Amino acid sequence: MTAAYDVLAIGNALVDVIATHDAAFLGAHAIPKGTMRLIAADEAERLYALLGPGREVSGGSAANSVAGIAALGGKPAFVGRVAADQLGQVFAHDIRAAGVHYATPAMADGPPTGRCLIVVTPDGDRTMSTYLGACQELSVADLDAETVRASAVLYLEGYLWDPPAPRAAMRLAIAVARAAGRTVAFTLSDVFCVEGHRDDFRALLGSHIDILFGNENEVRALYRTDDLGTAMAELARHATITVVTRSEKGAVVIAGGETIEVPAEPVARVVDTTGAGDLFAGGFLHGFVAGRPLAECARIGGIAAAEIISHYGARSEADLKALVAARL
Amino acid sequence: MTAAYDVLAIGNALVDVIATHDAAFLGAHAIPKGTMRLIAADEAERLYALLGPGREVSGGSAANSVAGIAALGGKPAFVGRVAADQLGQVFAHDIRAAGVHYATPAMADGPPTGRCLIVVTPDGDRTMSTYLGACQELSVADLDAETVRASAVLYLEGYLWDPPAPRAAMRLAIAVARAAGRTVAFTLSDVFCVEGHRDDFRALLGSHIDILFGNENEVRALYRTDDLGTAMAELARHATITVVTRSEKGAVVIAGGETIEVPAEPVARVVDTTGAGDLFAGGFLHGFVAGRPLAECARIGGIAAAEIISHYGARSEADLKALVAARL
Repeated sequence: MTAAYDVLAIGNALVDVIATHDAAFLGAHAIPKGTMRLIAADEAERLYALLGPGREVSGGSAANSVAGIAALGGKPAFVGRVAADQLGQVFAHDIRAAGVHYATPAMADGPPTGRCLIVVTPDGDRTMSTYLGACQELSVADLDAETVRASAVLYLEGYLWDPPAPRAAMRLAIAVARAAGRTVAFTLSDVFCVEGHRDDFRALLGSHIDILFGNENEVRALYRTDDLGTAMAELARHATITVVTRSEKGAVVIAGGETIEVPAEPVARVVDTTGAGDLFAGGFLHGFVAGRPLAECARIGGIAAAEIISHYGARSEADLKALVAARL
Repeated sequence: MTAAYDVLAIGNALVDVIATHDAAFLGAHAIPKGTMRLIAADEAERLYALLGPGREVSGGSAANSVAGIAALGGKPAFVGRVAADQLGQVFAHDIRAAGVHYATPAMADGPPTGRCLIVVTPDGDRTMSTYLGACQELSVADLDAETVRASAVLYLEGYLWDPPAPRAAMRLAIAVARAAGRTVAFTLSDVFCVEGHRDDFRALLGSHIDILFGNENEVRALYRTDDLGTAMAELARHATITVVTRSEKGAVVIAGGETIEVPAEPVARVVDTTGAGDLFAGGFLHGFVAGRPLAECARIGGIAAAEIISHYGARSEADLKALVAARL
């Protein structure tokens, strides 16, 4: 069956609130720099009050990835929960305006739309505190099996493995996709996320995931090792395709006994690294669906990531399609 | 009496939704480029659906001015209405986090928080469609006379002269400020605004306003003339201090028979001119309250305006205080 959508992503539907602070701010409030942590509603309110003036841009890791795929000329879809409130309207507007098919209904009651409070430090590093809100109410009822079957790739966000209802929806989506002969891709998302679900992630990797994304710290955490080589050797044994992102050192693709290293794209000035991994995965999958060689897929990912870190926010501002055409 | 606040501004409490489009988009939807127009709720919804992905930043003309004054090290206050909704929370958070005293209670019922849909074209020009929502519900009941008396300058936004209830509140504030011997400053805001309220604005100028801000088009519209010289001669006769901003040609201050020309500050790349006039007024008033010579006040305004147009959004991102210290 030909695919109606290139990539269907299931992930958190978040609005990012971006504020700038120095590293001392994070230290003073005991927030581990460079990570993502989940926070409750009251902590979100407390932290928001401490933050400086913010700018709001739609976010969510897998949502950023599919917005990038649309900007590259692809046909993606997204499943994720917002509430019927103003931030929910903003999220739905932005993802549709970006060119992503998005049909998950907004929740009329329950918690408000989730938000991610992002502190960007002068080094461009981002530290995220996420209040999931409506995101964690995503359930199997929100999953349209027809859309899963109609998508060449199913892409899942490790962040969303934490709350039980969305996890069940993702397990079902994996089963539907595999039965339809589709490709399943998964991102480890975050070190804390790997620590919390190591056994699940390893089990998935052995039999249910075709493409795994992770950065160096995440793949090391997956195999409880300080040595990247050891982690990569394990990945080579267990995963079909693994893509390890390495920030300014570029990326490594491990597949079929081969290891392909791809350098990072040049960036004039790193402003905000939020979304770098998301856009890398989006660019990679866009190339993958088009049947490009894996090295080229990684280069498209690198070009998309380089654009996103040159400005605030994790949705592209430049014409990604033109950038790839010019550089590749 | 010494002043507790440098500047108390009364204005629209808006959240800006910024999207980029080429000029053809404006033409196709019959939106006059480079202006601000008021739109109703249904038109706001229709236009929002047409806009591409947006980024949300707190805005409002006079609110931007006082946020700039706070960034320059001043002690400003703001009066303006939001609703008790998420965008209202965003506005209140941002203006307080910027260092502005803001105590207007959020409305529990009535229209939602106002928003300004801004289309930025590749030339950096901004075209604004504003849904006032809760802004226009501001009334004399929201005005704390003690705060007016305790502020060295009262600053009013011409945009807010349109709806009747806020206009009455501004008239009362002028009376209170003048009785307390305070300075009253006013911005013409927009050509359409001047066209709609020319007689009111001229009457105010003769007796109630000490400092008038306007750009070339606005002061020409005020005196129904195509000739800037004619308009400036009229202003010299009627106003105590007039500040005419002229974009890349800098600014002209007319006061006490003198005309002072100040060149524009250099800008590496104009990204988005939203807020240029707002930050100019804020910078000028900050210098004025500190007792600086008028030429210096205009230069501080120019430095603040140059920072704002180098990025998206009308709230400063760089350290304005340090910029002024370095350049002046």
